[in-house]
Amino acid sequence: MTHTSLEWDPSFVARDESTMRCKFWGVGGDGTVGANKSAIKIIGDNTDKYVQGYFDYDAKKSNGLTESHLRFSDNPIHSAYLLDEADFISCSPQAYVETYDLVKQLKDGGTFLLNTIWSDEELEEKLPGQLKRDIARKNIEFYTINASKVAEEVGLGQRVNMVIQTAFFALSKVLPIDDSIKYLKKSIVDSYGHKGEDIVNMNYKAVDKALEELHKVEVPEAWKDAEDTVKDYGEEPEFITKMVRPIINLKEDDLPVSTYLPYDDGTYMSGTSRFEKRGISLHVPEWHPENCIQCNSCSYVCPHGTIRPFLLTEEEKANAPEGFETIPANGKNFKGYEYRIQVATYDCLGCGNCADICPAKEKALTMEDAGPQREAQKENWTYADEVVGYKGNLAEPNNPKNSQFRQPYLEFNGACAGCGESPYAKLITQLYGDHMIIANATGCSSIWGSSVPSMPYCKDPEGRGPAWANSLFEDAAEYGYGMALAQKSNHSLLTKYMNKFIELDIYSPLNDLFKEWLDLGKDYDKSREVADKIMEEAGKGVDNKEGQELLDRILSLKDYLAQKSVWIYGGDGWSYDIGFGGLDHVLASGEDINVMVFDTEVYSNTGGQSSKATPLAAVAKFAASGKKVRKKDLGLMMTSYGYVYVAQVAMGANNMQTLKAIREAEAYNGPSLIIGYAPCINHGLKCGMGKTQEREKLAVEAGYWHMWRFNPELAEEGKNPFVMDSKEPTGDFQEFLQGEVRYASLKREFPEFADELYAAAEKAAKERYAAYLDKLNQGAEIASEA
Amino acid sequence: MTHTSLEWDPSFVARDESTMRCKFWGVGGDGTVGANKSAIKIIGDNTDKYVQGYFDYDAKKSNGLTESHLRFSDNPIHSAYLLDEADFISCSPQAYVETYDLVKQLKDGGTFLLNTIWSDEELEEKLPGQLKRDIARKNIEFYTINASKVAEEVGLGQRVNMVIQTAFFALSKVLPIDDSIKYLKKSIVDSYGHKGEDIVNMNYKAVDKALEELHKVEVPEAWKDAEDTVKDYGEEPEFITKMVRPIINLKEDDLPVSTYLPYDDGTYMSGTSRFEKRGISLHVPEWHPENCIQCNSCSYVCPHGTIRPFLLTEEEKANAPEGFETIPANGKNFKGYEYRIQVATYDCLGCGNCADICPAKEKALTMEDAGPQREAQKENWTYADEVVGYKGNLAEPNNPKNSQFRQPYLEFNGACAGCGESPYAKLITQLYGDHMIIANATGCSSIWGSSVPSMPYCKDPEGRGPAWANSLFEDAAEYGYGMALAQKSNHSLLTKYMNKFIELDIYSPLNDLFKEWLDLGKDYDKSREVADKIMEEAGKGVDNKEGQELLDRILSLKDYLAQKSVWIYGGDGWSYDIGFGGLDHVLASGEDINVMVFDTEVYSNTGGQSSKATPLAAVAKFAASGKKVRKKDLGLMMTSYGYVYVAQVAMGANNMQTLKAIREAEAYNGPSLIIGYAPCINHGLKCGMGKTQEREKLAVEAGYWHMWRFNPELAEEGKNPFVMDSKEPTGDFQEFLQGEVRYASLKREFPEFADELYAAAEKAAKERYAAYLDKLNQGAEIASEA
Repeated sequence: MTHTSLEWDPSFVARDESTMRCKFWGVGGDGTVGANKSAIKIIGDNTDKYVQGYFDYDAKKSNGLTESHLRFSDNPIHSAYLLDEADFISCSPQAYVETYDLVKQLKDGGTFLLNTIWSDEELEEKLPGQLKRDIARKNIEFYTINASKVAEEVGLGQRVNMVIQTAFFALSKVLPIDDSIKYLKKSIVDSYGHKGEDIVNMNYKAVDKALEELHKVEVPEAWKDAEDTVKDYGEEPEFITKMVRPIINLKEDDLPVSTYLPYDDGTYMSGTSRFEKRGISLHVPEWHPENCIQCNSCSYVCPHGTIRPFLLTEEEKANAPEGFETIPANGKNFKGYEYRIQVATYDCLGCGNCADICPAKEKALTMEDAGPQREAQKENWTYADEVVGYKGNLAEPNNPKNSQFRQPYLEFNGACAGCGESPYAKLITQLYGDHMIIANATGCSSIWGSSVPSMPYCKDPEGRGPAWANSLFEDAAEYGYGMALAQKSNHSLLTKYMNKFIELDIYSPLNDLFKEWLDLGKDYDKSREVADKIMEEAGKGVDNKEGQELLDRILSLKDYLAQKSVWIYGGDGWSYDIGFGGLDHVLASGEDINVMVFDTEVYSNTGGQSSKATPLAAVAKFAASGKKVRKKDLGLMMTSYGYVYVAQVAMGANNMQTLKAIREAEAYNGPSLIIGYAPCINHGLKCGMGKTQEREKLAVEAGYWHMWRFNPELAEEGKNPFVMDSKEPTGDFQEFLQGEVRYASLKREFPEFADELYAAAEKAAKERYAAYLDKLNQGAEIASEA
Repeated sequence: MTHTSLEWDPSFVARDESTMRCKFWGVGGDGTVGANKSAIKIIGDNTDKYVQGYFDYDAKKSNGLTESHLRFSDNPIHSAYLLDEADFISCSPQAYVETYDLVKQLKDGGTFLLNTIWSDEELEEKLPGQLKRDIARKNIEFYTINASKVAEEVGLGQRVNMVIQTAFFALSKVLPIDDSIKYLKKSIVDSYGHKGEDIVNMNYKAVDKALEELHKVEVPEAWKDAEDTVKDYGEEPEFITKMVRPIINLKEDDLPVSTYLPYDDGTYMSGTSRFEKRGISLHVPEWHPENCIQCNSCSYVCPHGTIRPFLLTEEEKANAPEGFETIPANGKNFKGYEYRIQVATYDCLGCGNCADICPAKEKALTMEDAGPQREAQKENWTYADEVVGYKGNLAEPNNPKNSQFRQPYLEFNGACAGCGESPYAKLITQLYGDHMIIANATGCSSIWGSSVPSMPYCKDPEGRGPAWANSLFEDAAEYGYGMALAQKSNHSLLTKYMNKFIELDIYSPLNDLFKEWLDLGKDYDKSREVADKIMEEAGKGVDNKEGQELLDRILSLKDYLAQKSVWIYGGDGWSYDIGFGGLDHVLASGEDINVMVFDTEVYSNTGGQSSKATPLAAVAKFAASGKKVRKKDLGLMMTSYGYVYVAQVAMGANNMQTLKAIREAEAYNGPSLIIGYAPCINHGLKCGMGKTQEREKLAVEAGYWHMWRFNPELAEEGKNPFVMDSKEPTGDFQEFLQGEVRYASLKREFPEFADELYAAAEKAAKERYAAYLDKLNQGAEIASEA
């Protein structure tokens, strides 16, 4: 039979002739992908076998799902697609047993390896019935290994990849076991030899121990008839049950087209990320109320909105679940309330920034094993979030502490653990989320900001929350500009209708309300209040044909009665490079619009390409030998318009300054730009992603980053519009650079000119600071003349 | 018969059922189009007739060919295309009789009106045979009128439109003549009533006089057999004869496809504009040697390169045509030479800037009637340009005078008379034209810079001249960047081959030449010299297989042996707006590339839309009530990189500063940006386009425009990189604004807020100046610390 492109024979495409097909379930950062790549290399280098790796990632940045597909064969491999059937499947994250159909692709009689801390008895209790049934009915050889235990015992801490890799070689039999071990040990010397004998020995031990720890589970006959374990998710909207949940569970291809049809215009329910309950972190913070000074800094810096302060009335306290500890709230605004820090333990990614920056004498937060914490806090979280709720209205959010009593309208997003971007985005939603529109540039912030089915922007009990959209990489500014102009246009229509209505001189309370609305300055709360009254009154109608027609028109625009806060979010790739032309144009327009730039100094989302925000000497893709020209000064450039509000912030260095800048930017009746320093996995922080906030502080102290605000309103008042918020740098600039692989690697790869570039980088940073001081002096002159 | 889209019946499309079809030949700026629009309005407003105007323009900016097509009918007009056949044709520019087939579309027995100063006897002598024959054989009613004479007699100067319009009404008989005159006079009151009785009376007189002056030519029977007058263009390249000339004469549709085929890759012969000899200006400058101080300023500012200084040896003087007056050349470099200013009278557009800025006590240039000057200077021009040639090598072009002895590699371009852009473009070619590559953004500069068949960038007798290309509006910077990178890449290939050759240690003079080449700094002349020697030696070959292979490769790159100067040209629409993202990116790259921005403060090419370069208060399309935000400071923004050379210039204010900036920019081994102020017809200069250079001077004196240079090289030398070239403004800012319709019209249309915007414009200009002074102080601080 011949095949033409019009005939379809599934066997033609799906025939996979490799002799050994292996699949590995992992989570980003657990080393699974790296171990698999290493396995491919070992076999490729040492045998005549053909090898192929095919890696699949979800959109959850560095902590997302990874599926590695490996093929081995004595003949060339032509299967350029994911595995349909596997001979061997391994799963590293124990939590996946509840989420995914782990052995779906495993062939009858294949081998399944589960990394778990569970004993056989616990397996009996914890494995879902459907998994048990599949294992039993498919005659699967089922093995477990407690890789963490092995790794810790031999001194490798949480680095379990060598253990799993050894188990894979032992079980898959892709090579005779003795050969595998020989090659594996050789590769250890190659990889870690330069790190010293100790490291090599630890890895040797991990290999030997792995073989010992490998445990074959005797699959009980009873598993063949195990019944489905139905997980109780509680009450969930149909949208979650029918669409979100299946997609989370990787069953999106099983859904009929009709499931998707109602959403074919691209609009989507917000707040779906809270249904994920990923539960992937190994450690989460535990609150120690006795040490807590109630500063709320932990909540302020949390990238995922998973640690929050709550205020309880007496009654709420009384109804709280057991173990829901509280302390009396500090501060006159909160008198009579009880205070508690509550962690969403299933959603926390365990970065540890909250505990790291906790300023209490004795830490009020410590990172503890996630398992027990998840159990202990599950009910507490639900009570706090859903019953107690948010009492942000008790105090003006004019300091970091107060800001945190407000609901974050961005929660459980897909960013990396420790992300430097999302805390800014979250804070802004705490201030304006209930009347906010966001145009998001493509980049990390659009991926962690929304990847189907996970939408972390959410709404409050009144159904209010940000309207969020992403168009393209390059057009976010123009896209947001259009949104702002639409608001403006509808606002002027409303103005026209109300004026016409007033002219009709009908006896109606609406006349006064319309006058009040027409006189509104820039005041959201007031506008919300008047809007509600207008809607109530207008709903009653008037006994005048022309007047009623106008009311109908006004009501058709009721969503625009209350003011909106329009924001554009994007990274430095967008703002400094690809979308800069549009950003400049929109800022120059003079329209009332706010821009938040998450400056990671590199194209983070696409894997670390150099942008014009990348500083001199930093190593990045397209700047492999260190960037040769200095970082563009986007902020300073934009101050040249004179009527654009501009600020540079770093919340880890000064959380009050960040808050102030955001509030000033939003209040300014014109274009605003805030550039926030955002440490990123691409920086290769030697201290790890648990100290991203600390890095922001060090960056400012070292004179690497500068904090300032340029407020045109001050100039109008005859004051200096430029405010320098950074102190004279006192830290060691070079030491700061050496704390990050993006800089430190330059010296390793290009020792001949690294020092020269390091020195140039320091010079450029100093000149940048000098330019800000000049701007400060210039403003002072103007002010003194005024 | 029915028509389907597959059947073609020419009569179907071409059937024009209007009762009167009229065509008018005009030249941009002569009022023909305006008069025709007015005629349409008169008939439309006063009668029941249907009217239609269809206007066709060539690409020669405001002085180009205009063809107006008017249809009148008692029934609706459905002919949405140019006229195929006309009842009436008029031609305003007398010069067109030699260029175009004027009566081709005129029907048998139709009417032809020629505006001419010629008598019947002169017509007999001057009309080409083919035109005479057509007039006679088609039984055309042939009329002439000397409209200029009428206009001057009644006091309207050169404004001939009322005269021609009257003649049209009288001859076309689209309406009964008495009605026409009545409506025409009514329209005069409507249009000019507010200007006073005098103006109305002048126009009344023009109407009456026109009817008197209208002259019917008795067409001699002999014209029926008149023979073709073959114009002698002298020796011309085949490309001109076969392609350029027919296109100039509007016969492009008659050319077979095979004519175009050799140019299907878009490359095109340069220097074709000199074959046009448009001869359309009414006045051209006449040189008065006795008054001349030999400053060459006239040549410096000429937008079209039509006035040039020449230096003659004794022999050249001796062989000169009669009347080729010279004076002894001033200056030690030119000792022994004779000096002459020569005008290309056929190519001059008669703007008069040369005469206007002539600084001699008694003007050495006066604007005189073009006719006699064209006759008198025709041979002189050819002798000067083709025989005497350019002796720019006698002196370094380090002052405006010296720069003008060099050949302009941009001549007779399609810009408006008095254009403020092209003098900058031309000057740059005089400095670098023989080794220059230009990437041109779309805009005026790409239209006057090249519109088929007219290519004003030209070459010298050695065949060297700019390579010029235009891609899109938005990508000029990126396009030029690619050109620069290509140069760089080929340069590094040459470096590699030469080093390899040297390593072979073959006995050859090439070794030393290659070493010399490899050691070259940035020195075009030297590189040209070494390149020539290399090519000569390499042509001889070497007796070594590997060596010869390297030589072959080097010779294959011979065009890259001599250095190139890469330029990007564009207007403010490109640089401030549409191409800004790319411009910023390319300047930030640090590559050695030069950018010249022609800042007309508006989208000139597309008819005057507001750009971010448009200043506050200026009226433009999309800013009909005056621009509300201030002009973007592109130059200041780009200084923030620190390593970008930036200058703001205005040659009319300081021609030495302009020259200095261009030379520094080109010499700087990095990115450079020059922003030149360029007055434009869109400004509505009340003093006319003959004073564009004067306007530049006034702009600087009034503090409207500022001249400065920012040279990173100075900073490297520990000096202040910022040089303020503008003096403290002393002129009257508001008076300057009122000199231009774009500002003055605001007061007329929006008296309620015009003054407020004018004041804001002045404030913005002052703050701009203050920012430059701060930049100056900042630089001084850095320098004093160094």
